[in-house]
Amino acid sequence: MFESARLPQKMDKKTFKKLEPELREALLEAQLPVVEKKDFSTLILVDGLDGAGKGEAVARLYGWMDARHLVCNAYGEKLDEAKLRPPLWRYWRDLPAKGETAIVFGSWYQGILRDKIYNKIDDDAFEKALMRIRRFEEMLSNEGVLILKFWFVLPKDVQEERLKKIQKKNAARHVLADWAALKHHKQASQVGEKIILETSKGFAPWFVIPSQDPEYRDAALAQTVARAMKLRLEDGEVREVAAPPVIGGLQRETAVDAIDLSASLDKAPYEKKREKYQKILSDLSDRKDMSKTGVILVFQGNDAAGKGGAIRRVIRPLDPRIYKVHPISAPTDEEKARPYLWRFWRRVPRKGHFAIFDRSWYERVLVERVEGFASHGDWLRAYNEINEFEQELTDFGFIVCKFWLAISEEEQLRRFKAREETAYKQHKITDEDWRNRLKWDQYAIAAGDMIDRTSTHYAPWTLVSSENKRHARIEVLKTICDRLEEVV
Amino acid sequence: MFESARLPQKMDKKTFKKLEPELREALLEAQLPVVEKKDFSTLILVDGLDGAGKGEAVARLYGWMDARHLVCNAYGEKLDEAKLRPPLWRYWRDLPAKGETAIVFGSWYQGILRDKIYNKIDDDAFEKALMRIRRFEEMLSNEGVLILKFWFVLPKDVQEERLKKIQKKNAARHVLADWAALKHHKQASQVGEKIILETSKGFAPWFVIPSQDPEYRDAALAQTVARAMKLRLEDGEVREVAAPPVIGGLQRETAVDAIDLSASLDKAPYEKKREKYQKILSDLSDRKDMSKTGVILVFQGNDAAGKGGAIRRVIRPLDPRIYKVHPISAPTDEEKARPYLWRFWRRVPRKGHFAIFDRSWYERVLVERVEGFASHGDWLRAYNEINEFEQELTDFGFIVCKFWLAISEEEQLRRFKAREETAYKQHKITDEDWRNRLKWDQYAIAAGDMIDRTSTHYAPWTLVSSENKRHARIEVLKTICDRLEEVV
Repeated sequence: MFESARLPQKMDKKTFKKLEPELREALLEAQLPVVEKKDFSTLILVDGLDGAGKGEAVARLYGWMDARHLVCNAYGEKLDEAKLRPPLWRYWRDLPAKGETAIVFGSWYQGILRDKIYNKIDDDAFEKALMRIRRFEEMLSNEGVLILKFWFVLPKDVQEERLKKIQKKNAARHVLADWAALKHHKQASQVGEKIILETSKGFAPWFVIPSQDPEYRDAALAQTVARAMKLRLEDGEVREVAAPPVIGGLQRETAVDAIDLSASLDKAPYEKKREKYQKILSDLSDRKDMSKTGVILVFQGNDAAGKGGAIRRVIRPLDPRIYKVHPISAPTDEEKARPYLWRFWRRVPRKGHFAIFDRSWYERVLVERVEGFASHGDWLRAYNEINEFEQELTDFGFIVCKFWLAISEEEQLRRFKAREETAYKQHKITDEDWRNRLKWDQYAIAAGDMIDRTSTHYAPWTLVSSENKRHARIEVLKTICDRLEEVV
Repeated sequence: MFESARLPQKMDKKTFKKLEPELREALLEAQLPVVEKKDFSTLILVDGLDGAGKGEAVARLYGWMDARHLVCNAYGEKLDEAKLRPPLWRYWRDLPAKGETAIVFGSWYQGILRDKIYNKIDDDAFEKALMRIRRFEEMLSNEGVLILKFWFVLPKDVQEERLKKIQKKNAARHVLADWAALKHHKQASQVGEKIILETSKGFAPWFVIPSQDPEYRDAALAQTVARAMKLRLEDGEVREVAAPPVIGGLQRETAVDAIDLSASLDKAPYEKKREKYQKILSDLSDRKDMSKTGVILVFQGNDAAGKGGAIRRVIRPLDPRIYKVHPISAPTDEEKARPYLWRFWRRVPRKGHFAIFDRSWYERVLVERVEGFASHGDWLRAYNEINEFEQELTDFGFIVCKFWLAISEEEQLRRFKAREETAYKQHKITDEDWRNRLKWDQYAIAAGDMIDRTSTHYAPWTLVSSENKRHARIEVLKTICDRLEEVV
């Protein structure tokens, strides 16, 4: 889920030197009115993997903010007083007064992280604990506390390198949180992702900070803190909307940008593979256990990426009685009169069948977001609603495959022009398509956010380069076959 | 938790005949503008114990509302189409369009109720399932659906009688929901209470309908539906606040009204019992296992009920080093600058100790509610926040005893006068006390709601008649001894 956060986000020292005074000013401009108005207090939770340099990041923040109204509370092993009282007691004890800010180093997520990583609690107990944390944070927020939660990430190899350096230095430093140690990197990341997914709400959002590059890391932290405090001061209150994790807030590469568009396939090998996979798909769909599952395929992507063509190659080997293709465009009156997912729930296939969506519920966070058809609050909460919806489906035993078909801006232009010039394809190009091209960058950000926030382990996104249509069609067929083979 | 709902709520036929046309008018006045504006759709969930007459109540509602814009969807055993799709599919399929109302007979709570009553799922899985329901309802609400949930209750003996009558009639009727059957009465009530506690939120509140008396039942249902639709239409949107179960909305007796104030104790037996229980308490507090627990005592009640005197008799046998008495009044500046529970978290005792609160966090839902010091939203969400707070304490192994000391209005007047006339007690009576007397009824409702909404199995309320102070003091001592004995 942290796809974007794993991409190298760098900031050269020159840019940083120029940015630094601006960050400092933004932080103070945000903090000082808050100190004066005493409208709310602020908690900055610092969590995530060790070796990310959380200590340094906080130290830098301290230097940039007004330290008279800032305190850093570190919670390691419980001291005697705390051992004799319920777990939350020491956090309650140290809550700052309105106007003040406290950095929480070692938050109430620690216990749960540790228990889950060491398998001391099962999934249900884990979710229950997260639910209580959510309610705790909701109450704090209702009582005038701004809660900003930061999860620092970095790739395993970088973490390894960093931790070696630290040990070599042999400097006196605080004991590494054992669970955040290198050997638990994978689990810590997975559990962390789950926590962020479950506990990122509008009133207490998580921000994932890529920490490979110290300058980028500290700038991202500072910019996010400044922005959040300023917004809270202006809004006057916190509007509760489900807000999935936001990535740092700085210009960033998204997973969509990182797709390798050079992948291609020549005609002869393509036809061979197509035959092969279409036969496999046909066989799989005939198996007895097909009746125990259902398949939901979602196709999204740039205009003219080739969604229709990919879908045609998928249905070719299937018995028409067991699939339906649903081209999704503007909602009907009946659909507008009901919750937006209703139009997709009515198209949920029965067991044994396929439902193929050419565009889907994801339009909510794509076109409706970019064009403003859905309000900010609406599309923000949609990510988690979509995740829940897909979980209902997969819990029931259905397979959900989501494909993002990507092409470059240049290739899109070429295809648009080709459509205009080809008589029988002219219906496929409209003024709207040309208008959408103008918003290419906005759509790219929306797609990147979508991938970040809705790629779950039970319903992951498959990013497919469709610059070469043949390559795309084989990727799609292969993916479907692989997923179906696991189940039937 | 349904204390109030178990009290006989009756309405004689004459009153009902007079009320009926008013109810009818209120319902139509609420429903018709909704049909016209098409602002939102309405779901009326009908759940609870069998034999309560849910069918008759709905039939009556049908007669009073405009049936052209009302539909009743019953969900019993899954039909084939539904078996082939995820559980929520059939509810989604039948969602009404904006402006319309659908009665859901056999809601998404059925499965969870059944599983929990038959012990097919453990506590954690149960809570997780409830959490997902909450998110489902939150999404529906965000998408413009007004969700009203009704839980019909009646005492076991009445249910028994009703079910016998139904069987005798031998009329063709729908199959009784097995889990709602008589033999599961206790579990169904307990699980129902838990569900209501966990899933009653401002956007999807539960209403508990006492169903011993059919006229009262139907009037409560109608009045609540009319009121809720009207408010939603006026508000224009649903404000999300945690709203614990509301009881029907009609003038009702509360558990506080039902306390038997005639209980009394003469001086000699009183002194004997006092010595006995004070000795037991002293011994218990000396036991080795006392270090594994902590005791939190909360004293609330009418002014002049005798909280102070009861507390003095409790601390008499205890070592002063192991207890603290916290008299709670107006918050300090520091306390006002933090979430309201902070002032109590700082007074949480360490293991092995007692913390005794003369007034407590319950002032939020008593004086702050009646006098308007806390906003409607603030005290409404406080019930669940208090329950969560107390659960943090009991989860850690602490004992939480809550006492409501009750006296009659007349007795309060007598004691107020006595204080005025006694020199050394004059400080105990202020203008404020006299002013509060004017709001006796409002305080009674607030206290009743408080008992209903915060009497949990881990931290129940003990209602004590303090009309006779001696009786009250013994009840208090005895309760504390009993609770402590279970643990040390």
